[in-house]
Order: sequence, then C-alpha cells, then structure tokens
Amino acid sequence: LRQGVPEVIFGQGKSVDQIVAIIEEIVRVGQSVLVTRIEPDKGEAIAARVPSFQYAPLARTGKVTVKPPPERAVGPIAVVTAGTSDIPIAEEAAETLLAIGLRPDRIYDVGVAGLHRLLLRVDELRHAAAVIVIAGMEGALPSVVGGLVATPVIAVPTSIGYGAALSGFTALFSMLTSCASGVVVVNIDSGFGAAMAAHRMLPGSS
Amino acid sequence: LRQGVPEVIFGQGKSVDQIVAIIEEIVRVGQSVLVTRIEPDKGEAIAARVPSFQYAPLARTGKVTVKPPPERAVGPIAVVTAGTSDIPIAEEAAETLLAIGLRPDRIYDVGVAGLHRLLLRVDELRHAAAVIVIAGMEGALPSVVGGLVATPVIAVPTSIGYGAALSGFTALFSMLTSCASGVVVVNIDSGFGAAMAAHRMLPGSS
Amino acid sequence: LRQGVPEVIFGQGKSVDQIVAIIEEIVRVGQSVLVTRIEPDKGEAIAARVPSFQYAPLARTGKVTVKPPPERAVGPIAVVTAGTSDIPIAEEAAETLLAIGLRPDRIYDVGVAGLHRLLLRVDELRHAAAVIVIAGMEGALPSVVGGLVATPVIAVPTSIGYGAALSGFTALFSMLTSCASGVVVVNIDSGFGAAMAAHRMLPGSS
Amino acid sequence: LRQGVPEVIFGQGKSVDQIVAIIEEIVRVGQSVLVTRIEPDKGEAIAARVPSFQYAPLARTGKVTVKPPPERAVGPIAVVTAGTSDIPIAEEAAETLLAIGLRPDRIYDVGVAGLHRLLLRVDELRHAAAVIVIAGMEGALPSVVGGLVATPVIAVPTSIGYGAALSGFTALFSMLTSCASGVVVVNIDSGFGAAMAAHRMLPGSS
Amino acid sequence: LRQGVPEVIFGQGKSVDQIVAIIEEIVRVGQSVLVTRIEPDKGEAIAARVPSFQYAPLARTGKVTVKPPPERAVGPIAVVTAGTSDIPIAEEAAETLLAIGLRPDRIYDVGVAGLHRLLLRVDELRHAAAVIVIAGMEGALPSVVGGLVATPVIAVPTSIGYGAALSGFTALFSMLTSCASGVVVVNIDSGFGAAMAAHRMLPGSS
Amino acid sequence: LRQGVPEVIFGQGKSVDQIVAIIEEIVRVGQSVLVTRIEPDKGEAIAARVPSFQYAPLARTGKVTVKPPPERAVGPIAVVTAGTSDIPIAEEAAETLLAIGLRPDRIYDVGVAGLHRLLLRVDELRHAAAVIVIAGMEGALPSVVGGLVATPVIAVPTSIGYGAALSGFTALFSMLTSCASGVVVVNIDSGFGAAMAAHRMLPGSS
Amino acid sequence: LRQGVPEVIFGQGKSVDQIVAIIEEIVRVGQSVLVTRIEPDKGEAIAARVPSFQYAPLARTGKVTVKPPPERAVGPIAVVTAGTSDIPIAEEAAETLLAIGLRPDRIYDVGVAGLHRLLLRVDELRHAAAVIVIAGMEGALPSVVGGLVATPVIAVPTSIGYGAALSGFTALFSMLTSCASGVVVVNIDSGFGAAMAAHRMLPGSS
Amino acid sequence: LRQGVPEVIFGQGKSVDQIVAIIEEIVRVGQSVLVTRIEPDKGEAIAARVPSFQYAPLARTGKVTVKPPPERAVGPIAVVTAGTSDIPIAEEAAETLLAIGLRPDRIYDVGVAGLHRLLLRVDELRHAAAVIVIAGMEGALPSVVGGLVATPVIAVPTSIGYGAALSGFTALFSMLTSCASGVVVVNIDSGFGAAMAAHRMLPGSS
Ligand SMILES: Nc1ncnc2c1ncn2[C@@H]1O[C@H](COP(=O)(O)O)[C@@H](O)[C@H]1O
Ligand SMILES: Nc1ncnc2c1ncn2[C@@H]1O[C@H](COP(=O)(O)O)[C@@H](O)[C@H]1O
Ligand SMILES: Nc1ncnc2c1ncn2[C@@H]1O[C@H](COP(=O)(O)O)[C@@H](O)[C@H]1O
Ligand SMILES: Nc1ncnc2c1ncn2[C@@H]1O[C@H](COP(=O)(O)O)[C@@H](O)[C@H]1O
Ligand SMILES: [Mg+2]
Ligand SMILES: [Mg+2]
Ligand SMILES: [Mg+2]
Ligand SMILES: [Mg+2]
Ligand SMILES: [Mg+2]
Ligand SMILES: [Mg+2]
Ligand SMILES: [Mg+2]
Ligand SMILES: [Mg+2]
Repeated sequence: LRQGVPEVIFGQGKSVDQIVAIIEEIVRVGQSVLVTRIEPDKGEAIAARVPSFQYAPLARTGKVTVKPPPERAVGPIAVVTAGTSDIPIAEEAAETLLAIGLRPDRIYDVGVAGLHRLLLRVDELRHAAAVIVIAGMEGALPSVVGGLVATPVIAVPTSIGYGAALSGFTALFSMLTSCASGVVVVNIDSGFGAAMAAHRMLPGSS
Repeated sequence: LRQGVPEVIFGQGKSVDQIVAIIEEIVRVGQSVLVTRIEPDKGEAIAARVPSFQYAPLARTGKVTVKPPPERAVGPIAVVTAGTSDIPIAEEAAETLLAIGLRPDRIYDVGVAGLHRLLLRVDELRHAAAVIVIAGMEGALPSVVGGLVATPVIAVPTSIGYGAALSGFTALFSMLTSCASGVVVVNIDSGFGAAMAAHRMLPGSS
Repeated sequence: LRQGVPEVIFGQGKSVDQIVAIIEEIVRVGQSVLVTRIEPDKGEAIAARVPSFQYAPLARTGKVTVKPPPERAVGPIAVVTAGTSDIPIAEEAAETLLAIGLRPDRIYDVGVAGLHRLLLRVDELRHAAAVIVIAGMEGALPSVVGGLVATPVIAVPTSIGYGAALSGFTALFSMLTSCASGVVVVNIDSGFGAAMAAHRMLPGSS
Repeated sequence: LRQGVPEVIFGQGKSVDQIVAIIEEIVRVGQSVLVTRIEPDKGEAIAARVPSFQYAPLARTGKVTVKPPPERAVGPIAVVTAGTSDIPIAEEAAETLLAIGLRPDRIYDVGVAGLHRLLLRVDELRHAAAVIVIAGMEGALPSVVGGLVATPVIAVPTSIGYGAALSGFTALFSMLTSCASGVVVVNIDSGFGAAMAAHRMLPGSS
Repeated sequence: LRQGVPEVIFGQGKSVDQIVAIIEEIVRVGQSVLVTRIEPDKGEAIAARVPSFQYAPLARTGKVTVKPPPERAVGPIAVVTAGTSDIPIAEEAAETLLAIGLRPDRIYDVGVAGLHRLLLRVDELRHAAAVIVIAGMEGALPSVVGGLVATPVIAVPTSIGYGAALSGFTALFSMLTSCASGVVVVNIDSGFGAAMAAHRMLPGSS
Repeated sequence: LRQGVPEVIFGQGKSVDQIVAIIEEIVRVGQSVLVTRIEPDKGEAIAARVPSFQYAPLARTGKVTVKPPPERAVGPIAVVTAGTSDIPIAEEAAETLLAIGLRPDRIYDVGVAGLHRLLLRVDELRHAAAVIVIAGMEGALPSVVGGLVATPVIAVPTSIGYGAALSGFTALFSMLTSCASGVVVVNIDSGFGAAMAAHRMLPGSS
Repeated sequence: LRQGVPEVIFGQGKSVDQIVAIIEEIVRVGQSVLVTRIEPDKGEAIAARVPSFQYAPLARTGKVTVKPPPERAVGPIAVVTAGTSDIPIAEEAAETLLAIGLRPDRIYDVGVAGLHRLLLRVDELRHAAAVIVIAGMEGALPSVVGGLVATPVIAVPTSIGYGAALSGFTALFSMLTSCASGVVVVNIDSGFGAAMAAHRMLPGSS
Repeated sequence: LRQGVPEVIFGQGKSVDQIVAIIEEIVRVGQSVLVTRIEPDKGEAIAARVPSFQYAPLARTGKVTVKPPPERAVGPIAVVTAGTSDIPIAEEAAETLLAIGLRPDRIYDVGVAGLHRLLLRVDELRHAAAVIVIAGMEGALPSVVGGLVATPVIAVPTSIGYGAALSGFTALFSMLTSCASGVVVVNIDSGFGAAMAAHRMLPGSS
C-alpha cells in the first residue's frame, strides 16, 4: 500500500519534540512524511525547526516531500462540504489526496437546505473519479449526492453542531443508513481516512 | 383546545373490552372519538361490536363521528413521506387531520436519494398551509423540504430501518439538527402528534 | 423565507476576523444580519470594529439592521422559562424574534415546582400568538403550558443541570413525550430555532 | 427490617413449580409471603395449587397471609398516577403497602397536562404520610406534587410510552433532576421498591 | 416546606455579583440563605463582600443564618462515604442538614472492599434516624448498608472514577437496582438533594 | 447507477402480496428485480406464485432475472467472514454481487483468533479486485485484512454476539476506528450495502 | 490451549441438524465436544439423536466426552452467585470447568444485601484456587469478595433485573470499576468465558 | 493481598499537599507506597518535598520503597501495546508490576494492521507467565494474542482515538467480545488494574 505514498503520522497528543524526531527519522531513510492533526502553534514550531516542513493551517496538516508521489491517471476527487464549518476536515482530505498523488476538486458549502447551489454543480460532481462528502449536524448531503452520481461516495461525518448533533454521531448514523445505496462511511472528522479510502479505490494504489 | 375536536384514545396496550367501554362512554356524552394504534385484528373486533366505528387499517386508527369537526378556512396540509415504509405513520397523521377538520394532501415516496420525484411536486408543497414530513433511516427529507417552503415544517421521525437507524433515533436527531431553520420535531412514529401540532398552528384551533 | 428577514450567521467557532468579514459582505449587498452564539469578549471586539453592530450580551447575539423587518399583524410571542438559568436561551429567542419582526413577551422563572407563579400568568399566556417554552433538567413546563393554551407550543430544552440532566437530553426527551398533545420541539439550547419556528407559523413569513 | 413483614419473592423468570415450592417452604416456617411480577396465567395456576394464595391480576402480585402485618399508627400513603397506563405499577405498590401494614390512598390519572384534576385533590395529598408518584413518558408529575406537599415524595418512573420515552429512562432522569427538592427515586416500574421505601420512612418499620 | 428552612441558591454558573445580589435580597426580607456549588475563589470573594457569609470550602457551600432553623427532636443522620474522594459531596449533605436543623453523623471511607471498617460502625449506623450513603465507581455501599439497617437509606451516586464509572451513571444505576429493598436514590453528586430528602422524611419538616 | 442493474426491493416488513405485486410491476416494464431480507416461509410463498423467482434461503434474497447484468471486466470480489454465524450476511452480499454482474470469491470462517487460517489465504485475498470483510463481536478482521491488501476493504459489522457485542455496534465502531487506513464501513448486517459499494468502486458501474 | 480440552460450540442460533452434524464431525476425529447455550427442547432433540450426548438443562450445555480431560493438580474453583436467578450462568461456568478438568465449588445466593450468608463461607472462598463471582443488577458482590481473598477474582455480570439494570451493563460497569483492585471481568452472561479464563490462569492449561 | 505489596494511592484529584501527607503517614508505619495518576508538574513538586520519592513521568506514577517487594519465582509478564500512544498506560502497568515484585517484558507498537511485527515476537510472548495487552481504537490485539498463547491474557482498553473510539468504550466492548476465549478485561486506561490482576494470578500473591 505504501509505494510512493508518504508515511503518515498522527500528530494529536504528540509534542513538537516527538514529531520533529519522527519526521527526521523518516526523512533520513529517504521517505516523504505527512503529519495530521497538528494545531497551528505546533505546526509553526515544527516548521521553525524543520525548514522543508510545509504546514497547511486550515487542514492542520504538514508534510516533508522527499520524492513526490507517482503520477496517477485518474480524474479528480470531488471534496464536497455541506457547510463552511466542515472545511477544515475537507482540507485534511484534500491535503492527504495531494500527498498521495490524487487531485482534489473542492466544492464547498452546498448543503441540502439550499439545493440550488448543489444542483448548479452536478456536472462537476459527475466528472469526478470519486466523491468525498463531508457534513455535520444531520449529515444529509451524502444521500442526495449518492442519488446524483454513480461513482464511489465516501461520507465523512463531522463533529460540527450542538445538542442533538451528538458530536458527529448523528451525522455518522445518518450516513450509515443513507437511502442512496452503496454509500460508504469513515470515522467522524476523518478527512484523512476518506482520502486513504479513495486511494484504495483508484488505479495506482499499489 | 378540544372544541369540535374528538376525544383521542391511545389504543396500544388496551384490550378490545377496554376500548369498547371507553368509546361507549364518550359517545354517550355526545362526543366524537378517535382511537390510535389499534392493530387490524383488534380494529375489526371493535367494529364488530360498535357498528358506527370506522376503522382505517393502514393508519391503524378508528373513529366514531358523533358530530363532524367544524369547517376550517385553511389550505391543505401536505403529508410527505420519504419511503413507502413510512406510509402507515403518514396515514395516522392524515386520519387525525381529517378527524379535526383539516385536509391532508398525500405526497408519498419522494425521498432525497431520488430528488427528481420531490422536485416535481414543489408547487404542491408550496400551496400547503403546513407540511408534515415523515422519514426514517437518515431523516434527511425535512431539511430539503424546509429549504423549499416558507410555511411550518413538522418533522416526524419513523422507526423504519435497521442497525444504525437506531429505531428512529437517528432520524429524530437528524431532524433536530436540520440545517433548514425553523423545522420542528415530534416523537418517533407520532403521526398523531404531528397532526395535533398542525391543529395548534392553524386558524380555528380553539 | 428570507424576505425582510436578516441573514443569520452561526458565530460559534468563527473568529472575530471571520465574523467581521461576513457581516461586511452582507451589509454591502444591503441586507440586515444577525449573529448568534458570540461570547461577550468577541461581541465587544466586533462592536469595536463595526460601529453599527448592536451586541446583546445576555443573549450572546449581535446584529446590524440595514432595513428593519416588515411589520407583522400578529400578537406577541410568549417566551417562558422554568428557571433563571434558562434566561440566556430565552434572550436568544427574543432577540431573534425582534430581528424578524415579531414581538416577545418575556415570562421568566415560572417552573412547575412553584405552580402558583405560573397560574398567575395564564391570561398573558392565552393572549400570545404562540408560546416558546424553555426548560432544562426535567423539562416539565411545556406539558403544563400545553394543557393551558390552544396555540402553538414550541419547546426548547436547555443544557442546564448536572448528572441525570444529561446536558439537555433529559429535557429534550421529556418534551418529545409530553402528555400535552401537539407540543413541538427544537434542538437543545436553540432559542434561535424556536424563534424561526414561530416565524414559519405566523402570518407574514414569506 | 423483616419483622411482621412477609418474605417477598421476585416471580419474573420463575416457573409455577418453582414459585409454589418457594411459597410452601416459607409458609411451612410460619411466615407470610408476597410474590411480585407474576402474569395472570401463572397467577391462576399457582392459585389452583395453593388455595390460600390470593392473586391480584392488575398488580400482578399474589400473597399468602399466615399472620397479618402489625397495625401501624400512620396516615395513608397516597399512590398517585399520571395516566391510566401507570395503574398496574400503582397497584403493585398498593398491594405491597397492604402486605406490610400500610394503607394506600389511590389517586389515579391526574397528569400535568390536565392540572385541574390534580389541583382538586391537593387536600387529599396533604393528608398523606408519604406520596408515591408514578408516571411514564416525561415523568413531570413528581415535580408538581413535590411543590405541593412537604412530606416524602417517592417517584416511580414507568416504561409506558414509545420512542423518546426510552422504556422509562426519560421519566427516570426527569425525576432525578426534578426541580422540587428532596424528591427521591426508585427503579423503573418498581411499585414494589416504592412501597418498601415508604416502609423504611414510616414508624413501625423495625 | 420552607418553614424555618433557608432559601437555597444553586451557585454554579452564577457570578459573584449575581450571588451577592440574591443573598442581600433574601436577607433583607429576614430569611436565612444557603448557597451550594460555589468554588473556593468565588466563596472567598462573596465572604469578602458579605461579612455574615460563612463559607465551607470542602462542601463548596456558604450560608447566612438570619434565624437558626427550629430544633428538631430526631436522632442524627448518618452521612456515609465509600472513599475519601466522596467527602466533598458528603460535606454538601452535612452542611445542608445543619442548615435545616438536622444533625449529621459523619462515617467516611468505609467502602465494601474493606468490609471490616464498615462492620466496626454498624451500631452507629443503627442509631441514625436515616442514612445517606455516598459512593462513586461501582456504588455498592448502599446495598450493604441497606441490609444492615431498617431506617431510610438515601443513596447518592458520585462522579468519582474514570472509564466505566461513566461520570457517576454506573453508581446511579447500581443504586437503583440495589438488591436491598427500599433504597431510594437522588441525582449524581447531589448531597443537597439527599439532605432535603431526609428533611421530608423526618418530623418537623413543615 | 441503475444501468443493467436490477431494481432492489427491501423485503422486510412487506407482505407476500405486496412483494409479488411489486415484482410483477417491475418485470412488466422489462427489468430484473432483486428482493432482500425475505425469510424462508415468505420466500417459498413468493416462489410458488412467481415461477421465475429464484430464492436463496441462506442469503434470504430472491430474484427474477429478465435480462442478465452486463459482463464486467474485473477480478473477483473476496467475501470474507470471521465466523460461521456471519455467513448469511456474506451470502446476501454474494447474491447481490451476482445480480449486478460481479463475481464473489467466498472465504469464510477465518477470524483473527485463528490467524493461520487467514494467512493461508492471503494470495487469494490479494487477487481480488476488492474485499468485503464481514465480522460481528469485536469486528477485528478488517484491520488485519486491511494490513494485508492494497485494494478497497469494505467492512460489514454483523449483529452476531451478545452482551457487550451491542447488536453489532461494537463491531461497527471497531471497524470505523480500524488502525488499517482507508477501510470503509457500511451499516450493520448490510451485505447488500457492501455489494453496492463494490459496484460503485469498480469499472462498469454506470 | 486446546490440549486435552474439548472443542466448544456456540449453540445459540444453530439448528439441531447443524449441531448434530458438527458434533459428529468432531467426535469422528476423536475429540471431545462441549456445546453451550442450547435450550432444553433442542438439548433433548440432540440427545435423542446422539446417545453419548449428556445434556445439563440448568446450564443449557451438553457434551460428548471422547477422552476425559487430563487431571490437574489445583484446588477447586469457587463459583459464587449473588442471587438464585444467576444460577444458570453459574452452571454454565461449572459445566465448562468440569469439561476442562477443573473442579467447581458452588456457593450460591450469597448477595451483599445479606452479608451474614457470605461471611459464613469465607473459609471456603479462601481455599479456592480462583473465584468466579456471578451477579446481576448492581453487581456489587465481586468488590466484597475481592476484599476477602488474595486469589484471582473473575467477575461475570448477568442480565438479571429490569429497568436500570440495563440488561447486565450496570453490573458490567460496576465490576470494571470495582474498588477491590485486580478484579477482572468477562462478557455479560458468559459463564463459559469465566471458566476459560480460570483455565488460562491455572497450571496445566497448555 | 497486601503482604510485601505497597499501599497504592490514587493520585488524581488530590493536591500535592494531600499526597505528601498520605505518603509520609504510610512511610512512618514502615510501608512502601505507590502513587498512580500524577501529572509531571505534581510529580516533580512531590519529589522536591519527599527526597525518597521516585517519579516515572511516562507512567505518571511515583513511589517510595521502604522495603523492596519479596522475590517471586515467576517468569516475566509481557506488557504489549498496539500503538505508541498506548505506552503511558503500559508504563503504569510496568511500574506497578515492579512495585509488587513482578518483572515486565515490554513489547510495544505491534498492532494488528502490521501483523509481521507481532509475529516476530511470538516466542517472547509464549515465554511470559501472563500477557497484559493494551490497545485503544478497535481493541483488536487481545484477540490475536489470545489465539497465540495459552497463558492468561489481561486486556486493557485505552481512551486513545477519536469519534467512534468512544473514549475507550469501543476497545472495551471489543475486548469483552473477543473471539479468543478466556481473555479477561479491566477498566479503560487501568494499567494499574491489569498489574494487580496479574498479581492475583501468579504465585506469591499472599
Ligand atoms: N444558534 C443557531 N443554531 C442553529 N443554527 C443556526 C444558529 N445560528 C445560525 N444558524 C444557522 O446557520 C446558518 C449559517 O451558518 P454559517 O454559514 O456557518 O454561518 C444560517 O442559515 C442559520 O440557519
Ligand atoms: N418487583 C421487584 N422488584 C425488585 N426487587 C424485588 C421485586 N420483588 C421481589 N424483589 C426482591 O427480590 C428478592 C427475592 O429474590 P428471589 O430470591 O430471586 O425471589 C427479595 O428479597 C426482594 O427484595
Ligand atoms: N438489505 C437492504 N439494506 C438497505 N437498503 C436496502 C436493502 N434492500 C433494498 N434496499 C434499498 O431499499 C430501496 C427500496 O426500498 P422499498 O421501496 O421500500 O422496497 C432500494 O432502492 C434499495 O436501495
Ligand atoms: N490508577 C488506579 N486505578 C484504579 N484504582 C486505583 C488506581 N490507583 C490506586 N487505586 C486504588 O485506589 C485506592 C486508594 O484510593 P485513595 O484512598 O483515594 O487513594 C487503592 O486501594 C487502590 O486500589
Ligand atoms: Mg452556509
Ligand atoms: Mg421507494
Ligand atoms: Mg427560580
Ligand atoms: Mg388519562
Ligand atoms: Mg480509601
Ligand atoms: Mg469458527
Ligand atoms: Mg435470594
Ligand atoms: Mg505505530
């Protein structure tokens, strides 16, 4: 699975020291590395110490590219969000896609309460090789998207919302019971997981 | 609240004997009566003993109309379902609406995975005085409807589905966190509750 | 739905910079704007940068009124709380009502453990066009109010309480199973949602 | 604790053979016995084999009284229900009270959506030595009763209701967070537990 | 209920200013006042402004005694804890008992994994008019105490523990299903609620 | 999505009459039909009335093939189970794959407590175009499989087990938090959903 | 692990035909077999077809002993229950112990509400090589036993009880948070799991 | 149980002053003491005041050894983790083992998504007297280890992960339903509990 693909580090709960050490060890053996879930203060501290480290604050990811991922002959991956609050998770997916040689096509803030905005972009959705759909609260967007495209739909619930949003579980369960058949689901807030799922589904993954 | 409105009996867990006794007592004082949640075998047994009892098997409701509810100068109430499995709950709402002098407009099986079917009926939705939206599984339909109409949207989650549908709680929580603002929610499978909510919202309720 | 009604921004999780930018964009196209869920420090920072921004600290809402909402020929909306801790949510409802041209009538701290205080205000409740009932902990107040008035009762559970209050879920489930028929419910702590629901129910919403 | 008090057998999950054997063993040593949670068919089968066994079908309890419980110089125990569906649990409480020498005063179907019925019986409530309040669904009644009397209020949640009633957990959590202070709670559907709690609270328990 | 009993204020979530204002209002009308759930920094700030305010840091309660509660001819109330971490909740109960004219008898750190410590104090338990039993984690102590005494046992679950302790819900559910009959339960961490329950159960409450 | 693919009917909760009517309607317009979740008695009753209906009792599915699905130039889909109790769900997946022109390769009873059995079949797994992994109880198998293959891994939790298996939710949550990256998940017991997900992922889906 | 130990079949959900076939296959290769979770009607049907099959109705287990398990030089395993309703699970443990060459010592109905019965048997507990403690409802017994013995304590929660007993989860969580250190826990109702755990802990397991 | 074993203090929620006082009291009576769950800042503050206090920051434990634990003639205890994030809990187990005279053998970061790393260490696992297996997220490792060794397997779920990891409950439930028989489980994050369980299982515990 790992061919041409960077090592991926889960940054949350690790100190700047620990992350720098891991990055240096991986780079030393000639491999690229992607770090997810690093808050801006830590991201900047790492960049100050590892000059080749490129930090993306919105996505909360950073990477050192030793050798770029191999080119892959596939269309873009649509990365779709219901609201603007879902964008950080979408960016985590987009950054991961880029790191593994896939091309994100961002389609943001097209939630189901304003259908017209979504319907304007159906053609774009249909040209994608796969669609990552990211939504919090009621998590309804994957069902609508799943009815509009025949390609893989990877649903990512987010922890956006309050009260009955249940920290993302309402969106998660919604997506698992989607009335559009063949929709698949990854863990709450896992933009990374969705990108890796797309990686498995598309040519050039091994 | 009760003026011109029948007494309503919760039939579940009550025997045929008990229901017949309650019906006769209410009819004796000159009032109409509606009974909800009676399974067909019980419904038929009651009808055999109370000739004026009209049983609606799909809705699992029955009624004796002593004096018809007063006419009400309001438009129809759209009763919308996502799937065909939601129809019994929709019929409970429709029968309750009829019993309190409101007029249901049934729009069934227009779930969000097949948007075209819903979009064909937008005009009908917009002519309703209020919309009751009934859906199980991911409960996405009220968000889409709420974005299409300006009138009251009363969402009814149903216990249809399995696994992550959580016996209706996924739909319930979805509806409570709907991204269409001003959507209100009643208890799982409560077609009756939705109709009574419409009753409170429309002229002639007192 | 939006005619004469301000754009509404969900302030939580957004920075002062982001909110100021969104406000300026909406005002530039000549529309009013309401922002919900802004803590006092952020509210004051926004007011310092946008002079026309009016911040209501108790409600944690702020607004810029470009053109006032249209007059609406309806009675007041009663906004009722069980305790004093529920008042911030009530104020969010009241501020939203004002922003959409409806008139709140505040009836606070009339919880069911001291019935006399509630009973003193029954007439006031009965003169309202709709009643928003806000309660945490056991959430019993909407059932009692629902038995006293024939108009719409919109119940708002709050996250007030500890232990078995379950961050508002006990009040939420209580309200959904209210023994007063036709009570409708919105998400936990959503004073905004209750006001928007009233908006849909009353003349002049479109 | 057991002085003058019958042995109490939990009948649920036990066969007629097992219950008859246990009854006979207890009676042989000269003690009275109360059996709870026996469905009518089992209750009648036991009565057919143990002639002194008195079965109360509504309460689903049965007893053999070898020596009557000692007289106790206390006032009646009010046993109050919100609805008619709560009556079987109330009867379990009442039968247990009788078996331990206490006197139940039944006040049924006085739920909070129809306050007038409850208010008509306030004097009766105030004359009780303790009040057992039994309610399902939103479980609001103990809060109202707790505000009306100064004596012990023992709340019993019931599993009556559907959907958000959560098989009695909504009523349970409501009662635990009651805004009337000093209300105590027993397990869902435990009329027996409430009666035994009253037993501990009143003179003559040891 | 309130005769001779102070007004009780729930301090949590209220500012020093708010609490001082409420205290002064109550004292002005000649009544005593008890405030619960105030952290030490707030407690000291209040004491600095209201000289008659007596703050108990372990219990996190404070009071102003305008007229002492009436003498009550009852034995002590045993206040029992399983561990040392449960002591703050026990002190809240003890301070509330004192404020309403009841006498606490503290029996701390006698959990069931070291039975000998509990058994050494059985006589003391049996001399109490009622027993308040406070325990977190598995909440087993009320069952054992309930088997040792015939008087009221009021169980208070605490939020002590981690993982499967579920913030007090494991202890709560344990206590509700206690195999010692007649044990009653109050909300998690509610030392106050337990004391008020004892108040209702003992002579002189009205 | 539907090109060359049969209509799929959710059989659960529908009567034989209803299913026969739906089948006949679909067949009349020249389309194939697959029905899922029909118990053996109903399956046989349908077959008795619709001679072209082929029922698979283990999978609890039945179909009428009007025109066979188009040939698809892809490798087999491995359908893997942890235990023998998971086989009915695997067969639902296999039957659905066949109905949409994909070829299942069944690898059953290779759960992680007996690693050797799984390791013997690694080559077979690596030759599959995608792997559907079906497991109940602790749901560990997809993590191990995900570490062994680079192709899509679609995890299906089953409701097999008791107690802490939580009717499939433990397996569901396990799979969502799999330490093998890019594993995707469908609803509990949804062999159908997994097959439809494979359909979206593989060439020839539209 | 399996040396001298029978194959174990999970009987629940399998038909008599399936179980007979599996038994015959195992016996054919010369091994003993134990089947758990078979209800009496199925147990008797199997015995009628496999004469060497010994069925234990209380334990709901059956076995065919081809070669007896090897002798093991260890003391007895105490199998302790809190109530009489826990006995079937205890018998499942006892039968499994016998099948793997360990000797159960049954100590039943010694729950913590009647401490004296437990204290009478402390010596017996202290002579055991390990103690299996089985309890439903509040699951308090393992904490008390864990404080009395220094040997392994394996706690088995049972699904006995109603309401807040949560089908065994209250006992499960209680046991996991036991204040007696070093208590270990197996799945709800898993007498079999507890016996197998004892097997791993005692000499002669491999 | 306590012979030669230190007193163990639960440090969480206790102040430096309180912990120092307890340590001094225990040391004064000539006993060793172990303190668990102390964060580094508190650990260092204690060490500054109690010179003999040895603090292990990774394990968050500290101890004063007055007399070393007795030698025990048993093999090492394997302490195995799935990931690197689980190491702090493993170190709590290792430090507790050392304090009670047992010898930990650390085998870290051998999770099931990279089977080869685990398989390389099977011999080491098989030489251990018992295996403590520590894993978060899907908690799959104990099932695999349980299939590889015949000795006791003590599973410790950790709160590592997000979303569906449910703060450790997913791992907990996974481990309780492990398909490897005889695996036992302790509370989430309880390295201490696992070590004490090993203590009970091995010679020399009393
Ligand atoms: N307090 C609130 N609760 C729920 N929804 C809100 C709230 N405030 C604003 N909204 C909704 O959030 C939407 C705007 O979200 P955003 O684009 O993230 O600002 C608006 O259309 C409102 O319907
Ligand atoms: N309805 C009930 N709810 C809870 N506990 C009960 C009930 N009926 C009897 N019990 C208790 O169950 C114990 C007897 O259980 P058993 O030995 O299984 O019959 C008695 O001591 C009672 O305290
Ligand atoms: N086993 C199943 N699980 C989930 N969805 C299903 C299943 N079988 C059929 N469906 C879906 O149910 C829809 C048809 O529902 P219905 O109209 O009620 O028969 C189809 O479009 C399928 O996508
Ligand atoms: N990390 C831990 N997890 C669970 N229990 C612990 C832990 N550390 C100490 N204990 C237990 O806590 C008890 C002491 O609690 P305390 O008196 O509050 O210090 C000891 O008897 C230990 O069994
Ligand atoms: Mg938006
Ligand atoms: Mg349909
Ligand atoms: Mg108040
Ligand atoms: Mg009634
Ligand atoms: Mg202690
Ligand atoms: Mg198998
Ligand atoms: Mg017993
Ligand atoms: Mg690792």
